[in-house]
Amino acid sequence: MDDLPESDAFGAMCRDYHEQGDAFEVIERDDGFVDSPAGPEIYFSTPEQWDDREHTAVEWADGHVLDVGCGPGRHALALQERGHDVTGIDLSPGAMAVARDRGVGDVRRCDVAEAADLDGQFDSATMLGNNFGLVGNAERAPEILGALADATTDDATLVAESLDPLDTDDQAHLDYHERNHDRGWLPGRLRIRTRYRRYTGEWHDYLHVAPETMRELVADTVWSVEDVDREEALYVARLEKA
Amino acid sequence: MDDLPESDAFGAMCRDYHEQGDAFEVIERDDGFVDSPAGPEIYFSTPEQWDDREHTAVEWADGHVLDVGCGPGRHALALQERGHDVTGIDLSPGAMAVARDRGVGDVRRCDVAEAADLDGQFDSATMLGNNFGLVGNAERAPEILGALADATTDDATLVAESLDPLDTDDQAHLDYHERNHDRGWLPGRLRIRTRYRRYTGEWHDYLHVAPETMRELVADTVWSVEDVDREEALYVARLEKA
Repeated sequence: MDDLPESDAFGAMCRDYHEQGDAFEVIERDDGFVDSPAGPEIYFSTPEQWDDREHTAVEWADGHVLDVGCGPGRHALALQERGHDVTGIDLSPGAMAVARDRGVGDVRRCDVAEAADLDGQFDSATMLGNNFGLVGNAERAPEILGALADATTDDATLVAESLDPLDTDDQAHLDYHERNHDRGWLPGRLRIRTRYRRYTGEWHDYLHVAPETMRELVADTVWSVEDVDREEALYVARLEKA
Repeated sequence: MDDLPESDAFGAMCRDYHEQGDAFEVIERDDGFVDSPAGPEIYFSTPEQWDDREHTAVEWADGHVLDVGCGPGRHALALQERGHDVTGIDLSPGAMAVARDRGVGDVRRCDVAEAADLDGQFDSATMLGNNFGLVGNAERAPEILGALADATTDDATLVAESLDPLDTDDQAHLDYHERNHDRGWLPGRLRIRTRYRRYTGEWHDYLHVAPETMRELVADTVWSVEDVDREEALYVARLEKA
């Protein structure tokens, strides 16, 4: 795995952590803020290390699961362990290779917006590890949520994890919310990229929303938020089709 | 310590690690390479955690020590513990405040190039934690080494730690050496800055040299390399005035 694209910073981090047990996570935000939020360990965590919220999330998943942004596969592996068929999708070649190497049986390179092009209907979809954020921003969210509706059965469940961006007293984040507000954007709309050694990820939008904002965002889709399990700023939501 | 300048990324990292036990180190090189080389822990390490080389370094120090780039003071504290008077100099307000808070008695904001302006003659000067690198580049080295000569007694010792940049098989570093070579620069000349949350350090030159290159660099100064204690790529050198 020496030939990852230079943009696959996330994948290179996953590869090195998987192969050598040593790597670091650096996220750069477009206001110049640099963070090392969790480290690669979190992407390789096992259920014994999880909070209750994360156990709830995998319990809510049903049948054949589409794991959106599966990364190196921590949730996919736990779901397989529970007896589910799992299809993991991701855009990071490095993370996909690691997921396969760790035993995730079905990993495909697919943008969540094209999830409906995958053959077959899924009984549930998961956006875990804050991956509700992959909707990107308020404008793009309906398209993504529509793609997941098309990719799933009529009685499918969508399990989505997010973080309430307002649950902070960090002035750097509060200032960023204010900047977003001035642009008419949701406070938790982040423009970020991953950096890792010589790899520099593409700038992309990632969205953190409070549960009430998630309810508003899905209001014009077939999805509705039926349940929320919250632990401090983090929460997981169970969405069903109306 | 909430009012550090936005450029004091190193100091903000030291402050947070000192106050909260949690921070991270991000170094950005001018070719886009991003590293998290050691983490703040290294700057707070205690002698029990040191390699032999570092013990040799503090044993080589003599009398009243000028600790160049003292940071949060790990070497200054160990030198004080051994009975030395120590004057630490640094440019980071955050690191200086932490050093004082940890018990370093004399910490001054001073560029190494102006070390001769400090009152008094020092019996030795230390550039530890790879701080020989503060000479910046081959062109600037004579000025810095001259300033340290002026700041010290006639029989003073200079204890300098560095890293042999050629002792690597990391392709990203080898490519950077090649890039430097094409410019007529020493391979270990780095242009780097520290990033930490909302803080972005100034770009600056930092120089890693092999022991033989250190000998060449000091050839036109009053200093000469009298001893080297090397552990893999890292080494400490004892320099005396000719």
